[in-house]
Amino acid sequence: MRRQEFQMQQEQEEEITSFLEEMSFGFLGLVDEDGTPIVTPLNYAYAGGKLYFHGSRIGEKMTALRGGSKTTFAVAKEYAVIPSYFSDPLMACPATSYFKSVRIDGEAFIVDDPREKAFALEALMRKLQPEGGYKPIDADDSDYASRLKGVAVVRIDPVNVIGKFKFGQNLKPQPRHAIENGLLERANEYDAETVELMRRYCPAHQQPFD
Amino acid sequence: MRRQEFQMQQEQEEEITSFLEEMSFGFLGLVDEDGTPIVTPLNYAYAGGKLYFHGSRIGEKMTALRGGSKTTFAVAKEYAVIPSYFSDPLMACPATSYFKSVRIDGEAFIVDDPREKAFALEALMRKLQPEGGYKPIDADDSDYASRLKGVAVVRIDPVNVIGKFKFGQNLKPQPRHAIENGLLERANEYDAETVELMRRYCPAHQQPFD
Repeated sequence: MRRQEFQMQQEQEEEITSFLEEMSFGFLGLVDEDGTPIVTPLNYAYAGGKLYFHGSRIGEKMTALRGGSKTTFAVAKEYAVIPSYFSDPLMACPATSYFKSVRIDGEAFIVDDPREKAFALEALMRKLQPEGGYKPIDADDSDYASRLKGVAVVRIDPVNVIGKFKFGQNLKPQPRHAIENGLLERANEYDAETVELMRRYCPAHQQPFD
Repeated sequence: MRRQEFQMQQEQEEEITSFLEEMSFGFLGLVDEDGTPIVTPLNYAYAGGKLYFHGSRIGEKMTALRGGSKTTFAVAKEYAVIPSYFSDPLMACPATSYFKSVRIDGEAFIVDDPREKAFALEALMRKLQPEGGYKPIDADDSDYASRLKGVAVVRIDPVNVIGKFKFGQNLKPQPRHAIENGLLERANEYDAETVELMRRYCPAHQQPFD
């Protein structure tokens, strides 16, 4: 099955965590009361094995979230569009893109405890503003206490986390080398890193990450 | 309502179309048979007012798509993370991010007609590989005919398209100028463009785009 070819192993969990920590936003998937899917881009923090997000924009989605409903959250980064001519001078078919994506299926809970709210928001700040420049968010700080009440925070407890890192794992040696060379020659922003990832995830070289 | 503050007007349709044409991938939202949301990142083409995508990865989702089911598709680009200290030396609260996002709600149809498949895939190639370097995809070309049979193509007919371009439209003049100056000084990749967009979408200056 093609799906399994680029499905990551469980032991690659660290790699998934590090990707979730690196990315600044993802897409929350919910189902509305009438069975309609809703997808919303949101900044998030992944901390202590939980996913957190906040804000007035979630307000719109609160009805769908109230029921402890099933949610999914997807994060993806496209590393490289691979043109067909890297490996085939004629046909368009080999054109594709290489990407990392992580999907978290889980249950959503609205966070009421001010301490957990502060923990979530502080985690978000550390990620998006690692250089600091603000008073740390603390539920016991009177400057923050009332503001924490006014902000909606949602936690997703992951039930299933799946990473798909697609970097040509299913390629035969010849097109693989052609694509590696094409990327190295093109030298777009992420092309060298893409080649590194192609080599890293190549099934022939696959081994536990250190 | 905050939501309306950065909800785009209908006459800004061109702006939405141009954003959809610029971005290479988005997130498809579906509802599984048991009511679970599914969100999948996919390359797409927006052509003739329809959204198209393809591939074996859709195969997994075909059951959910067969019923002419309701789908949603979200595309987002984060332009700038706005640190709190741009406008507040103490509190973390003003930290946010500015982004463009478009949501397309619509009905999904599996495309069987080889000509429409060719149209969709050619639109995708023109977007992702505008430099050419491949034989144009044509249903009457015997090199492509059998391959077109083997590929799954899905079309979404939009029912509702909503653009949210969030660039500080709700700011008062003082923090607005502080953020503009902060961005111009920081000068990250999209910071100058973000300032342009802040000025463009500022309610005080809002007028139909030309």
